[in-house]
Amino acid sequence: MKKVLLGSVMLVATSVSATPFEKPEDAIHYRQSAFTMIAANFGDMAEMVKGRKDWDQAAFSQRAQFISQLSLMPEEAFEVPGSDQGDTKAKPEIWTDWDGFTVKLNKFQIDMAKLAKVSVEGDERATKRAFGVAAKNCKSCHSDYKFR
Amino acid sequence: MKKVLLGSVMLVATSVSATPFEKPEDAIHYRQSAFTMIAANFGDMAEMVKGRKDWDQAAFSQRAQFISQLSLMPEEAFEVPGSDQGDTKAKPEIWTDWDGFTVKLNKFQIDMAKLAKVSVEGDERATKRAFGVAAKNCKSCHSDYKFR
Repeated sequence: MKKVLLGSVMLVATSVSATPFEKPEDAIHYRQSAFTMIAANFGDMAEMVKGRKDWDQAAFSQRAQFISQLSLMPEEAFEVPGSDQGDTKAKPEIWTDWDGFTVKLNKFQIDMAKLAKVSVEGDERATKRAFGVAAKNCKSCHSDYKFR
Repeated sequence: MKKVLLGSVMLVATSVSATPFEKPEDAIHYRQSAFTMIAANFGDMAEMVKGRKDWDQAAFSQRAQFISQLSLMPEEAFEVPGSDQGDTKAKPEIWTDWDGFTVKLNKFQIDMAKLAKVSVEGDERATKRAFGVAAKNCKSCHSDYKFR
């Protein structure tokens, strides 16, 4: 009976939940998807910044725009109860230090919005400078909140 | 020597490539990530449209905005040679009928941009109507170009 009741309670909780995730695994998969896409776009921009790929201001700007949008998406998936367990490299510090985590996530969102803006304006040097600022925060957040 | 030469040629090809994918698997993983995120957001909107979840115009609008942005991302990953093989549910028709595929992908992008615009304007009925238009195209494209 308790199980049934728990089932009903959880069903209610799901139906009014603000998130689209039925199970913690779905939330983990969703945020990993977001970071997979962020990493691919970021990696391509890094190749250009390092001169290993021809500089293409328009392509760079498109990727910055993509990441700026993607950066807004994973947060809700970290809020899902139970998503700290399972197939995830998320450190427990995300949840024990939620305020610290969201401050850094928010900085990432702001950095990427700025990078998207600067890069569309077309100044290569300013774009590279803004990229450096954003890249620094990636590392800082990963060492605090992500297992390698 | 041929291998070395091939290695150099491929390196050159990579360094000027428009895509950020080193291997076909990376491209497959990228587009699957995009569709994972699209499906999660779309599923949540569908729950609201079907009345299984409380209607929330702001939340709906946010998801439409997310999908509108995400819809722009996977195309380049279908362009990667060799990404028709491997762990993918993409039908060969994507590449044998590339024009037909991109017409439908483009329709999806336009439908989602419209849905994002309509939903932010706040009219629930118009939002649901625009959602229906977009949902119809999902099915149509999946049956032509995606294995179940």
